[in-house]
Amino acid sequence: MENAIRIGIVGYGNLGRGVEAAIAQNPDMRLVGLFTRRDPAGVKPLSGVPVYGMSELERFRSEVDVMILCGGSKDDLPQQGPQLAAMFTTVDSFDNHSAIPEYFAAVDAAAKAGKTIGMLSVGWDPGMFSLNRLYAEAILPEGATYTFWGKGLSQGHSDAIRRVPGVKGGVQYTLPVQEAMDQVRSGSNPTLSTREKHTRECFVVLEEGADAAAVKAAIVSMPAYFADYDTTVNFISEEELRQNHNTMPHGGFVIRSGQTNQGASKQVMEFSLKLDSNPEYTASVLVAYARAAHRLQQQGQSGAKTVFDVAPGLLSPRSAADLRKDLL
Amino acid sequence: MENAIRIGIVGYGNLGRGVEAAIAQNPDMRLVGLFTRRDPAGVKPLSGVPVYGMSELERFRSEVDVMILCGGSKDDLPQQGPQLAAMFTTVDSFDNHSAIPEYFAAVDAAAKAGKTIGMLSVGWDPGMFSLNRLYAEAILPEGATYTFWGKGLSQGHSDAIRRVPGVKGGVQYTLPVQEAMDQVRSGSNPTLSTREKHTRECFVVLEEGADAAAVKAAIVSMPAYFADYDTTVNFISEEELRQNHNTMPHGGFVIRSGQTNQGASKQVMEFSLKLDSNPEYTASVLVAYARAAHRLQQQGQSGAKTVFDVAPGLLSPRSAADLRKDLL
Repeated sequence: MENAIRIGIVGYGNLGRGVEAAIAQNPDMRLVGLFTRRDPAGVKPLSGVPVYGMSELERFRSEVDVMILCGGSKDDLPQQGPQLAAMFTTVDSFDNHSAIPEYFAAVDAAAKAGKTIGMLSVGWDPGMFSLNRLYAEAILPEGATYTFWGKGLSQGHSDAIRRVPGVKGGVQYTLPVQEAMDQVRSGSNPTLSTREKHTRECFVVLEEGADAAAVKAAIVSMPAYFADYDTTVNFISEEELRQNHNTMPHGGFVIRSGQTNQGASKQVMEFSLKLDSNPEYTASVLVAYARAAHRLQQQGQSGAKTVFDVAPGLLSPRSAADLRKDLL
Repeated sequence: MENAIRIGIVGYGNLGRGVEAAIAQNPDMRLVGLFTRRDPAGVKPLSGVPVYGMSELERFRSEVDVMILCGGSKDDLPQQGPQLAAMFTTVDSFDNHSAIPEYFAAVDAAAKAGKTIGMLSVGWDPGMFSLNRLYAEAILPEGATYTFWGKGLSQGHSDAIRRVPGVKGGVQYTLPVQEAMDQVRSGSNPTLSTREKHTRECFVVLEEGADAAAVKAAIVSMPAYFADYDTTVNFISEEELRQNHNTMPHGGFVIRSGQTNQGASKQVMEFSLKLDSNPEYTASVLVAYARAAHRLQQQGQSGAKTVFDVAPGLLSPRSAADLRKDLL
């Protein structure tokens, strides 16, 4: 397509592969290249797009409209976000909620200096869930908002399990408690403890000779990760782990229960996701916001932006008149 | 509150009363007055706010920041929308979907000439449902979107019942078909006929001596309204109608089932509303968009706008930094 939006991907893990696949679904975009910290010769992208080292990024300043940053929030983005926003309009999925204000400030300064857009914390939480929390609270100022996650694979909790001595492998699923969701949907505005909202289910492969009871005790009592939850630990074979737990499903619910007319009427707004693939969905959101970021930059705007700053129409390849006619 | 956004309400039916109640939930807004086509002396607003005739509107040009138009889409808004947008920033719930392009053009011309914002078709459908159709399609370009309505009272279908000879009173509820929703949520992208998506349930009070079988036949065979649906007709007493069918509940579901990674992964996005009061919820959406319309006008923008054009952050009274910290 002529005048296609030219995209670069920085980092080629699950998220980067998801972005690569999502771009193929958007004919107004063209993937220019992948940028990796690994040896480019060792990376074989599915789409056959060229692979470059990070040192080559700068020479793409006039070849790439939007860089989609697919690195991690812990080690990669705090450095890459500001650094690349100085040169490119960027989109990332920075998801360390408590560090967002600080990260925003760093990206904002870089993007304003570079006259670019630094679109950050895009995905589903932060991202689509945040948007729904905002819409719901603005529309129903009297009420309470609840976020439930799952059923879904938690990467952080799976990693925590795998660090327990005696564990060879394992995964952890977060599950919302149906009863708590029903209470919220009824409009009763319950106060819910951590334990009442979610349960955790672990599937663990033991090292040979490991003590199952000790492993289980170590998991369920682990502070921050499991101690505050009702946790189930299932021991399975390596074969079963490989066959039945090799995908990354996730999802969840944002529910606001509010009152209008001096409490006379209950009004419930709910948004939910049921995802076969968490990274592929996150990637799809990143790609839609790459379109919006490019348009904002073309309008002459600059600085850090979040999903809260983007008019929804900018996400779609369709014209405003088309959207009003077909979707309004 | 100093610098409160000064609101006027045009039209004082169910929707106008809902707006009046919603403004009381938003401390950054102040209701200046109601404007009515009736004799102002005969209108007694709950909040005690002054009531004016329509002929007095013009002298409020510098007293009101946003006029919220609460008239009907059939007779009131096509005339009032452009007329008032020439003088005031306006928000309305114009919901005649097929006439939106024409209405948009008329309001746009008036608002541009008046240097105002004409925010139109705000509510839940059009409105929040439209937004969710747009987000879902932009994020998951390969897939299908389904809208289900109900369970809810349909004003138009209730009116149609009441026009049937022999009917003294009645209401109609639209219900989504659970099986169809389950199919959609499974990601199977079914093709659904009108009859497969919704059923209609009527509660009818007969005139004395009316023929129940004839009334039922007239209802279920009515073209456009009932003939394409499975319709149930229940005959009830006037007392039961008054006691059990005197509220205006509604709601519904927007579900998109999409595929990523060349069809390998199913991804389902769902938004739903469960409303005790349809007009009060619509009013709450109007009020949030009144805040946004005022801000756009203060930024120097003008012209017709829809929910697609409004960055979500503009809906909230909270600062952008606050929103990022608490809701992102």
